[in-house]
Amino acid sequence: MPDPAPASLDPEDWDAFAATAHRMVDTAIRHTRGLRDRPLWREMPAATRRLFAAPLPLVPTPLATVCDDVRDHILAYPLGNAHPRYWMWFMGASNLTGAIGDFLAAVNASNLHGGNHAARLVDDQVVRWLAEIAGFPATAAGTLVSGGSVANLIGHAVARHAFAAARGIDLRQDGVVALAPRPRVYCSAQAHGCHQKAAEVLGLGNVSLRRIPTGPDLAMDMDALGTAIAEDRRAGWAPATVVATAGTVNSGAIDPLPGIAELCRREGLWFHVDGCIGALAALAPRHRHLVAGIEAADSLALDPHKWLHAPFELGCALVRDGTALLRTFSLTPEYLKGATRGIAAGTAHHLCDLGLQTTRGFRALKLWMSLREHGANHFGALIDRNIDQARLLACRLEAAGVEVHRPVGLNIVCFRHRVPGLDAAAMQQFNREVMIGLQEEGLAAVSDTVLDGRHYLRAAIANHRTADADIDLFVDAFLRAARRRALSPAG
Amino acid sequence: MPDPAPASLDPEDWDAFAATAHRMVDTAIRHTRGLRDRPLWREMPAATRRLFAAPLPLVPTPLATVCDDVRDHILAYPLGNAHPRYWMWFMGASNLTGAIGDFLAAVNASNLHGGNHAARLVDDQVVRWLAEIAGFPATAAGTLVSGGSVANLIGHAVARHAFAAARGIDLRQDGVVALAPRPRVYCSAQAHGCHQKAAEVLGLGNVSLRRIPTGPDLAMDMDALGTAIAEDRRAGWAPATVVATAGTVNSGAIDPLPGIAELCRREGLWFHVDGCIGALAALAPRHRHLVAGIEAADSLALDPHKWLHAPFELGCALVRDGTALLRTFSLTPEYLKGATRGIAAGTAHHLCDLGLQTTRGFRALKLWMSLREHGANHFGALIDRNIDQARLLACRLEAAGVEVHRPVGLNIVCFRHRVPGLDAAAMQQFNREVMIGLQEEGLAAVSDTVLDGRHYLRAAIANHRTADADIDLFVDAFLRAARRRALSPAG
Repeated sequence: MPDPAPASLDPEDWDAFAATAHRMVDTAIRHTRGLRDRPLWREMPAATRRLFAAPLPLVPTPLATVCDDVRDHILAYPLGNAHPRYWMWFMGASNLTGAIGDFLAAVNASNLHGGNHAARLVDDQVVRWLAEIAGFPATAAGTLVSGGSVANLIGHAVARHAFAAARGIDLRQDGVVALAPRPRVYCSAQAHGCHQKAAEVLGLGNVSLRRIPTGPDLAMDMDALGTAIAEDRRAGWAPATVVATAGTVNSGAIDPLPGIAELCRREGLWFHVDGCIGALAALAPRHRHLVAGIEAADSLALDPHKWLHAPFELGCALVRDGTALLRTFSLTPEYLKGATRGIAAGTAHHLCDLGLQTTRGFRALKLWMSLREHGANHFGALIDRNIDQARLLACRLEAAGVEVHRPVGLNIVCFRHRVPGLDAAAMQQFNREVMIGLQEEGLAAVSDTVLDGRHYLRAAIANHRTADADIDLFVDAFLRAARRRALSPAG
Repeated sequence: MPDPAPASLDPEDWDAFAATAHRMVDTAIRHTRGLRDRPLWREMPAATRRLFAAPLPLVPTPLATVCDDVRDHILAYPLGNAHPRYWMWFMGASNLTGAIGDFLAAVNASNLHGGNHAARLVDDQVVRWLAEIAGFPATAAGTLVSGGSVANLIGHAVARHAFAAARGIDLRQDGVVALAPRPRVYCSAQAHGCHQKAAEVLGLGNVSLRRIPTGPDLAMDMDALGTAIAEDRRAGWAPATVVATAGTVNSGAIDPLPGIAELCRREGLWFHVDGCIGALAALAPRHRHLVAGIEAADSLALDPHKWLHAPFELGCALVRDGTALLRTFSLTPEYLKGATRGIAAGTAHHLCDLGLQTTRGFRALKLWMSLREHGANHFGALIDRNIDQARLLACRLEAAGVEVHRPVGLNIVCFRHRVPGLDAAAMQQFNREVMIGLQEEGLAAVSDTVLDGRHYLRAAIANHRTADADIDLFVDAFLRAARRRALSPAG
């Protein structure tokens, strides 16, 4: 006989639950407070891998045991991006206030697809704050998403819809086969892979994306862009959209935003800015001039889980003409229709009318809390500091004889240790081994990439915990590791 | 002069931070413990709306004040879905262990796009657990996403890619214009709007989606499906995919899964199941037979933030042939290339190769914790209970003379109070007013919909806190409200 009245998922013993929850808060504080004193990363032991190989648990385990496992097997083996010397893949470092925000969002439990409740208003407010940072007008609309890839996908989708609408084509009904002549989208050869993914997902195909060469600064070459557009017009394509990158992932290069804005106006093209890496520099008083021009974008992708350090996931797509966003996605079915009173009342549109999702979590809260706690000015100062630190790192490395790729873009430094007598492949292996050695020591994390056909190590500093002393510490450790490797028999 | 060394986002006073964090844990527990004793929902006061109209905060506010605001202005005005008598829009009710999971995920801070760390393994494990629940083979792959709409979008994208690949078309390169003959996708007239959104986003257009009529049970009519496929073949379409719904949002109807599976095999079509509402009934011993057939799907969308009550957002797309998922999305760029040692080492593919996102949060943890805490069997018992409660509600309403739409599908009851002498429009208004009145009283939340052209109220019971006594309490309140309204001058 099945249990006729199974208990809810609420704790059966509230005091025991409270004790465990408080213990995990203390664990979290201890974990965060001790970040600097622990290795940035370490390999997982067999017992941890075994735990994560177990099949579906059918019977209960005490919550306290589950929490011990989280502490011993999960918190103990992180990616490392919360550590002050993590400058590897481009991402933020999270923060405890944001973590409380995610906890309280789950306690609040509301679904933000729509409805008349506080979380919905906070979401609206956070989108307005981000539009304010970007310098967008009050007519803009936006939507909080999982991150930059989906934010860019949404920009591409709105651009595609606007392209069709301007030609009287019912894209949503008829699909992209109705688009004639076929639209072409331009981005730099250094643009993020998510733009290819967007072109593919949207059914335009990778062929619709034309990659424009970059200059020595790895920013889009405006002459090449102009030539490509003219060529395409002659060849029967319909130039549609230019994607400018404000901070490339490889080197932090910023495409010439005002020039592209002007070209788009002149040529009647949609101006999309991928600002996932750099747009939030608009908050930084000493460097905001670097991203001047983002405020002219028709659509802008940004990533508060990078330089605002919101715990994952928090991206945002902003669209200058808010109605264009709504027209691209709105699909309010019968059972979600608005009302003037009660839970379904409230606003002109549901949030699910602005993007891919129906159900929407309360991702806004973590950022709402930390922007209020610290104030936006403080985030601006932290961004300024990271950009300064990248320049400091470049100078220190050069002073020590390490080759640095110039110019240093925004907050990303690409560099390599040159070893006399090694060919390109051997030098790549040498630098990679030094990089991996520093990871295995748990001392620092940088990544590697290829620029102008040459292999470089790459430090992307978007980390509120990085102190200037960490730059020196890294340079010393890097040189020591390189020397050790150069002397070793395997070197 | 700017501050030369701004503080990190870590607390300056750790003890004060700890005190606030502990206080919010107590607040969260009190909030959850008191759910049943507070109104399900209430209108927000002007002060709350004012707070959420403020511009970007530039200067700091003490965290304790921010937390007070969350308590007084956000937790106090939720959507209501955590309340035991919320049966309105289809969603889960969250749970405190899941909330701790979201907190610890943010503390762990890892990005799950890839890399060699514990969170990545937990994500893999949770996907395997969900595949195990669905009865999928070990060759399956899956990806955790924001919810059902994206899970279904991913199913459609993989189906589209497989359709092209089988015909030697390079869809990712050439786009959907290369698909000739054009693919057609079938779903029931009761399918969720996200399938239209998927067809539009993927560039196939709404025209590619053919809606098949339903029988009196509101499930797909197999004869009509067969006829439509034959018609389409004659007309030059290429039938490509059948989307079966395991639990429609309107009425909980379940399309004939084994029949559709068999038809897809015979006709060489992709078999996608939208199981966002019903697939997790596979966990429920007394009702799993209702969704038999989902294990035969080529792709399956499911939503652990519904019947497993994971805090939002947690959806999942499963694909029977895991390589098909990878081939649809994988796009690993230079700077994310794998390694055999260090942070980038580990697995054959990055998680970002399996979907739309690059950055990926640790959504798996909340479910990993609560599945371990309660055991999957307990979730099965709770699902059985919700289905029983829907049947109980239908019987109680009928016994009281309320019209119930039969058959009752899964856990959704559609009903209406018939008032002699009122035409259809007046009866709709009558029922809606009763519905909104119960929301405004904070007593219960149901929604409304249209079935067979008639307006019904709709109770969708996917709530671990609902007790059988809540069914009786609702029926009494509903009848009382209806009587009151029938007697009122405005009635």
